[in-house]
Amino acid sequence: MISRVFFVFSLILSGSYAAMQDFCVADYAAPQSPAGYACKDPAKVTVDDFVFSGLRVAGNISSINKIGLSAAFAVNFPGLNGLGVALVRADFAVGGVVPIHSHRDATELVILVEGTVVAGFVASNNKPYVKTLNKGDTMVFPQGLFHFLVNVGDAPALAYASFSSANPGVQTLETALFQNNFPTEIIAKSTLLDTVQIQKLKRLLGGTN
Amino acid sequence: MISRVFFVFSLILSGSYAAMQDFCVADYAAPQSPAGYACKDPAKVTVDDFVFSGLRVAGNISSINKIGLSAAFAVNFPGLNGLGVALVRADFAVGGVVPIHSHRDATELVILVEGTVVAGFVASNNKPYVKTLNKGDTMVFPQGLFHFLVNVGDAPALAYASFSSANPGVQTLETALFQNNFPTEIIAKSTLLDTVQIQKLKRLLGGTN
Amino acid sequence: MISRVFFVFSLILSGSYAAMQDFCVADYAAPQSPAGYACKDPAKVTVDDFVFSGLRVAGNISSINKIGLSAAFAVNFPGLNGLGVALVRADFAVGGVVPIHSHRDATELVILVEGTVVAGFVASNNKPYVKTLNKGDTMVFPQGLFHFLVNVGDAPALAYASFSSANPGVQTLETALFQNNFPTEIIAKSTLLDTVQIQKLKRLLGGTN
Amino acid sequence: MISRVFFVFSLILSGSYAAMQDFCVADYAAPQSPAGYACKDPAKVTVDDFVFSGLRVAGNISSINKIGLSAAFAVNFPGLNGLGVALVRADFAVGGVVPIHSHRDATELVILVEGTVVAGFVASNNKPYVKTLNKGDTMVFPQGLFHFLVNVGDAPALAYASFSSANPGVQTLETALFQNNFPTEIIAKSTLLDTVQIQKLKRLLGGTN
Amino acid sequence: MISRVFFVFSLILSGSYAAMQDFCVADYAAPQSPAGYACKDPAKVTVDDFVFSGLRVAGNISSINKIGLSAAFAVNFPGLNGLGVALVRADFAVGGVVPIHSHRDATELVILVEGTVVAGFVASNNKPYVKTLNKGDTMVFPQGLFHFLVNVGDAPALAYASFSSANPGVQTLETALFQNNFPTEIIAKSTLLDTVQIQKLKRLLGGTN
Amino acid sequence: MISRVFFVFSLILSGSYAAMQDFCVADYAAPQSPAGYACKDPAKVTVDDFVFSGLRVAGNISSINKIGLSAAFAVNFPGLNGLGVALVRADFAVGGVVPIHSHRDATELVILVEGTVVAGFVASNNKPYVKTLNKGDTMVFPQGLFHFLVNVGDAPALAYASFSSANPGVQTLETALFQNNFPTEIIAKSTLLDTVQIQKLKRLLGGTN
Repeated sequence: MISRVFFVFSLILSGSYAAMQDFCVADYAAPQSPAGYACKDPAKVTVDDFVFSGLRVAGNISSINKIGLSAAFAVNFPGLNGLGVALVRADFAVGGVVPIHSHRDATELVILVEGTVVAGFVASNNKPYVKTLNKGDTMVFPQGLFHFLVNVGDAPALAYASFSSANPGVQTLETALFQNNFPTEIIAKSTLLDTVQIQKLKRLLGGTN
Repeated sequence: MISRVFFVFSLILSGSYAAMQDFCVADYAAPQSPAGYACKDPAKVTVDDFVFSGLRVAGNISSINKIGLSAAFAVNFPGLNGLGVALVRADFAVGGVVPIHSHRDATELVILVEGTVVAGFVASNNKPYVKTLNKGDTMVFPQGLFHFLVNVGDAPALAYASFSSANPGVQTLETALFQNNFPTEIIAKSTLLDTVQIQKLKRLLGGTN
Repeated sequence: MISRVFFVFSLILSGSYAAMQDFCVADYAAPQSPAGYACKDPAKVTVDDFVFSGLRVAGNISSINKIGLSAAFAVNFPGLNGLGVALVRADFAVGGVVPIHSHRDATELVILVEGTVVAGFVASNNKPYVKTLNKGDTMVFPQGLFHFLVNVGDAPALAYASFSSANPGVQTLETALFQNNFPTEIIAKSTLLDTVQIQKLKRLLGGTN
Repeated sequence: MISRVFFVFSLILSGSYAAMQDFCVADYAAPQSPAGYACKDPAKVTVDDFVFSGLRVAGNISSINKIGLSAAFAVNFPGLNGLGVALVRADFAVGGVVPIHSHRDATELVILVEGTVVAGFVASNNKPYVKTLNKGDTMVFPQGLFHFLVNVGDAPALAYASFSSANPGVQTLETALFQNNFPTEIIAKSTLLDTVQIQKLKRLLGGTN
Repeated sequence: MISRVFFVFSLILSGSYAAMQDFCVADYAAPQSPAGYACKDPAKVTVDDFVFSGLRVAGNISSINKIGLSAAFAVNFPGLNGLGVALVRADFAVGGVVPIHSHRDATELVILVEGTVVAGFVASNNKPYVKTLNKGDTMVFPQGLFHFLVNVGDAPALAYASFSSANPGVQTLETALFQNNFPTEIIAKSTLLDTVQIQKLKRLLGGTN
Repeated sequence: MISRVFFVFSLILSGSYAAMQDFCVADYAAPQSPAGYACKDPAKVTVDDFVFSGLRVAGNISSINKIGLSAAFAVNFPGLNGLGVALVRADFAVGGVVPIHSHRDATELVILVEGTVVAGFVASNNKPYVKTLNKGDTMVFPQGLFHFLVNVGDAPALAYASFSSANPGVQTLETALFQNNFPTEIIAKSTLLDTVQIQKLKRLLGGTN
């Protein structure tokens, strides 16, 4: 009785109505909307929906780019859904490279926690902004622009990249062009790359056509 | 094996999780959200969801306003859902008119590709901005304001209008007032129009009450 | 026939397609999205979905804070869903208090229609902005900041508070800390409050741990 | 010294840097941006910037529509700038009317605190949603749609209307058409109204052309 | 006197306060904000600020890609500032190509008004969506993704592309990589392209390093 | 000549017009807008505007909470302005605590890179979500909610927190209540805290009144 006032707002959160939520934990089984995944029944949400352990270890280091990438995006970390943040862990072997790519819906803010890398982005007026980053340095890549990081040190490097979207999208130049069945002739016409170059990279990356 | 790096980001897009999408093609059968239609299963999306042929030909030219309108909105072009763009084709007969209307959630940018029209909008301070447009001219009508186009040439005219929303809404003055069962007495009180005028237009346009 | 032009835009709103909506009345039974509740079938929407009578009378006046609060949020007023507005009625007994709280996703604009209250908010730089409001005065509490109202007159007071969200969220300091099972030790470490104080308020408000 | 931790975040708010703000009180003298007015120097902001007394008394009751309107918008209440809320007080004489109008950038949520009014809006598909409101009732008018209120009781009425924008815009049908120099011929063509009707209302409201 | 009611809302638009605007025509001379250009003094805005004639004629057809592009963006059409729309006219010679590019902040909706083109985009999962468009067809390229158009007919083609931003940004693969001083070694490492290919295109396009 | 096509889009970026920008580096000297700081002249922007070294070293460890905090916000890292991301480095001594606080305009995503902490947040329905995080774990705190972190290990800990805003705001419970001149009587009434407790913390933290 004495604490009734404290229940006033709570009442409108429950009773016979659907709960009013502060979050929308992803329910991967329901249809999505343009705003993200559907929300899991709030009665079934637990703290574990907001905690993710997938970045504890490095991703597999590939043999070509010598980079291991692990991501916490809404697609695999349900608590991020609708909240406008995401995170990637990048483990660079010596010589490792995060190849040129862009995020259709996110700015990226990277912090280098180990090593030395050259990082940069290219603006709409074709001007490159390139800098050598040292341990502890942070760099921002504005939304939708080409950017890259190259480990130029003689030791492994480690970086964390945060994003302004829970679903940033990732479009990597090489795989977008060469790791699919995008016809060589159209690629040639619309990039000015030589057919021989295109075919070489399609072979390397598993593309066809 | 050699292209493993290129699959890293791809992995998080598939595997046991729901796909991360760059788009949300409308599924008209599922419940909508405030952000638009639900998303079609991405596995079933094809290029045809992003292509629309409904603007190939002119809409029917009406006998009253002598205008034919065809629209590509999220409601009939599923690929637009959630993407913030839409398009209308307007075919003007001689004397054709796009009557005064507004879009509750979109700015409109019109390009006149044939003919000569007088176009304009009215601002919140009641100031009209009116101009004669010639072939190739573009005019912008800021969000939510009354605007119109009148073919003042001696030949048909053709315009394309693009919008800053996939679901702009359309509220036309005459039909909002006179093509429904909105009571004449309330219309009179809240517009200062004469009852006789209201009743005349209700008869013309099929309104009642 | 003569009114065909007036049906042109209407056609794209119906026919074989799902209707294009100007609103998204909440369907509490369907899964939510980050943008709000799913939309009720527009064919079943009536004017009553846009009208709410729950603010006609004062909420129950509690014995502790001597305040009665009634809310019109999307969670109980389905027509608000997705539209970015909400309303609360606050009835103050003599000495009544709206305790310090914040709204995670809304600015609040309050108008005092009866009485005299002291109201205020605290900014990120810890500066308090406090003012005595008289009948007819309006005060704005910027999004997400602590704010409060205290009836300092010798008569009841009445205020209406509007919000920039249909689901503003409400986080009240006392109940967030003391009306749950939040461990006393953690509260003490992360607030500097004394354990005795914490335990006293937990007892008053029904908290545990 | 002992409280250094509490200054850590504060430091980044002051020092040699421009202050980080929780609000942007309007500076009417500086150039505006698409997001609103420029921000007043935060060092000069006081609590009075967040309090507005302009709604204490009724606006002048006009002789035509018998309505008095007072507004708290960003244009006259600087604390609202950028915060997505605004408020209007509407005092209805007997027979008073808020004429049909729309807000280009805001949903409106009205609460009737005295009297009995008929209120309504028209949707994009020309369907009117009309209801008699009694004391304490709330009604929402979705963004950008025509809406109105008519006092149908035998006593004055009073309502408060809140908005989802600090700069909602207001486009009233009569004044947009008839209280300016919008040419009669174009109005006639683009509304189907008779020339005689247009000229009569232009005379009444002070329009020309 | 009799029309006082109609001035009520107007009053708050003028008097001693800065005007409340429905638009924000670009003032290129004042500092920009993240939301766009500063607003031109509304007293100096005319209808000509909302009309643009720069798309009347084709852009120069280049000798390499055989394409002429003319744009109406906020940068050259001041009325678009802050309104979320823009337009480009694309004139294709026989064999003309709009090379692969992306817009960091806009979805594109293209309508082909003359000719036959192959158009397409690549999604984040590297899947290409490619289609032959005929006269009157419309295609949407979701925000931030690589897309292109190739004239595959034996006659010139003409298309209009509208955007969901007044400042879409344009990042073209070739010029971003090869028409600047982006070091060849970094390009090679971060794209897998051969040095010889890179140097060839830098020579062709005027790049250095 | 041969590369003219590549200059077409570039032309609209320069010429006699203000440049179209992909970013808006903060100019701290010009008036702010609700969207952030004004933009630095793009001709004067260099890569250094996008790189920040202020997180290289730990912030000063305070004697009370045993925490050192360093921030990269738009207020001190100009390249972040308008881009919706920010970053904080938190160095915990043994027993270190990030006290309960909220961000009015940002979700926070924290990654623990060293140590063991207990972290959590409280939802609008007063439910706490608390979890022990180990090295490499990530936790999300939804926008505007109270949250905290406590080092419960026997060694220092290190975390990085990213935000969905370049200007997240920070409101810490203790300093908001006790490190200012907020009157004790009002705090008591609007929090239910005892006067003795309030006065004790005001003395500790430097508050008055």
